[in-house]
Amino acid sequence: MKDEKTNDICYGRNPVLTLLDVAPDRCHKILISESINKRLADEIYDKARRLSVPVSRVKQQALDRITDGASHQGVLAYTVKGKLGDLSQLLDKIFQAKDNALVIIADKIKDPHNLGAIIRSAEVFGALGVIFPKRNSAYPNSTVHKTSAGASLRIMTIAVSNLAKSIKELQEKGVWVVGLDHRAHRFIWDEPSLGGKLALVVGSEEAGISPIVAKTCDDIRSIPMLGKTGSLNASVAASIGMYEWLRCCNKGKSQKSR
Amino acid sequence: MKDEKTNDICYGRNPVLTLLDVAPDRCHKILISESINKRLADEIYDKARRLSVPVSRVKQQALDRITDGASHQGVLAYTVKGKLGDLSQLLDKIFQAKDNALVIIADKIKDPHNLGAIIRSAEVFGALGVIFPKRNSAYPNSTVHKTSAGASLRIMTIAVSNLAKSIKELQEKGVWVVGLDHRAHRFIWDEPSLGGKLALVVGSEEAGISPIVAKTCDDIRSIPMLGKTGSLNASVAASIGMYEWLRCCNKGKSQKSR
Repeated sequence: MKDEKTNDICYGRNPVLTLLDVAPDRCHKILISESINKRLADEIYDKARRLSVPVSRVKQQALDRITDGASHQGVLAYTVKGKLGDLSQLLDKIFQAKDNALVIIADKIKDPHNLGAIIRSAEVFGALGVIFPKRNSAYPNSTVHKTSAGASLRIMTIAVSNLAKSIKELQEKGVWVVGLDHRAHRFIWDEPSLGGKLALVVGSEEAGISPIVAKTCDDIRSIPMLGKTGSLNASVAASIGMYEWLRCCNKGKSQKSR
Repeated sequence: MKDEKTNDICYGRNPVLTLLDVAPDRCHKILISESINKRLADEIYDKARRLSVPVSRVKQQALDRITDGASHQGVLAYTVKGKLGDLSQLLDKIFQAKDNALVIIADKIKDPHNLGAIIRSAEVFGALGVIFPKRNSAYPNSTVHKTSAGASLRIMTIAVSNLAKSIKELQEKGVWVVGLDHRAHRFIWDEPSLGGKLALVVGSEEAGISPIVAKTCDDIRSIPMLGKTGSLNASVAASIGMYEWLRCCNKGKSQKSR
């Protein structure tokens, strides 16, 4: 069952289909469960055949075992780990962007489900990349690919040694760096509004943004809260910040073009 | 270990502390792990003693076994199931609210983690209650209490036989009912804006809002998306809708009072 040429796995319908879309050369072999529905099986077979990726049918339990019981949806790919992006690439992209550009900085998000959820929203809201520290952080792995619905395979993800230093490089390129902290006095909907070239910094649920990173931010904002629970889930808070950025970039523009 | 007078459990720091705050009479006995930190142990002991709730120290493994390996954070309470609210109570609350009131309608959210995350945000954004169908839905249980950080113990949760009928009752009280669907042409930030007395309907990730419920809504809106992933996590989408409601209710009001 093991594939000697590969060093990673990717599972779930969206992640595997995304991988075939964006990096078919990294996908060496696909396993699908005997018990998945015909439509999904056909979808995988069709796409894999066109890309010459072999597909094998296996028992559901084989996938349960390989994924250690994760929610694999009956589909798994043996893959080669992708390379992460680097900050200079991202800085180029930001420079090329006309007026608006969004970057997400995930400060020590240790739970891969949370990192995956943040990356999913980042891709949905058009962020150019997600930056996270090399140490003390979850990393784009199979859990992150699954939780992000494959978005972590599409968006540029960048591991850096020193977040505060990377933030300074972003600031030098004219990026406005705003941290989210529920104790901040200014709300995310306050002026100046969150449009333009923005890096949004989100911290972990336990510790929030690290003090040294917070000190480097140009501004710290909070999401207004009324109840007694006192805090939002980290990926929910990050996603609301991204939505507010998109809303501010689009002031006056309404409705989908039909 | 079992407590004959109880029929439910509640675990995790926030849920157990919230239960002691809002319904100590439902809390018959608390177990804490020998390995939790002194500060949390003291916090639980202090509160429980004042409310005459007995506390026992047990091995970590005992809690692992009772919670079936869930993330209990070393704290568990044997409890009596709470009563859910009823729609007439919620309608009274809406009637009493001056200008703005928010209600969340969760249409067949089957994953308790998703329902818990939605309830957490609902409490944070000041919703008066969360309505869900009696059938085909997750239910406020120990997983929901945990995922919602205890918010499901604070906010009114209401199970109804017929969502479409409940929506009509809300509409008769002047509540504007808006469904979220990523295919809708109008965005949540379009006019008329989402303030006032609003019920926000969210569907499951797989099926979206059921057709009969969608037909009953006054309007269907989408959250603008740029990427290729094509959809947000259900609880993230719901939370963004709630944020937009709060933002529209507060137009012109900025910054926390210091």
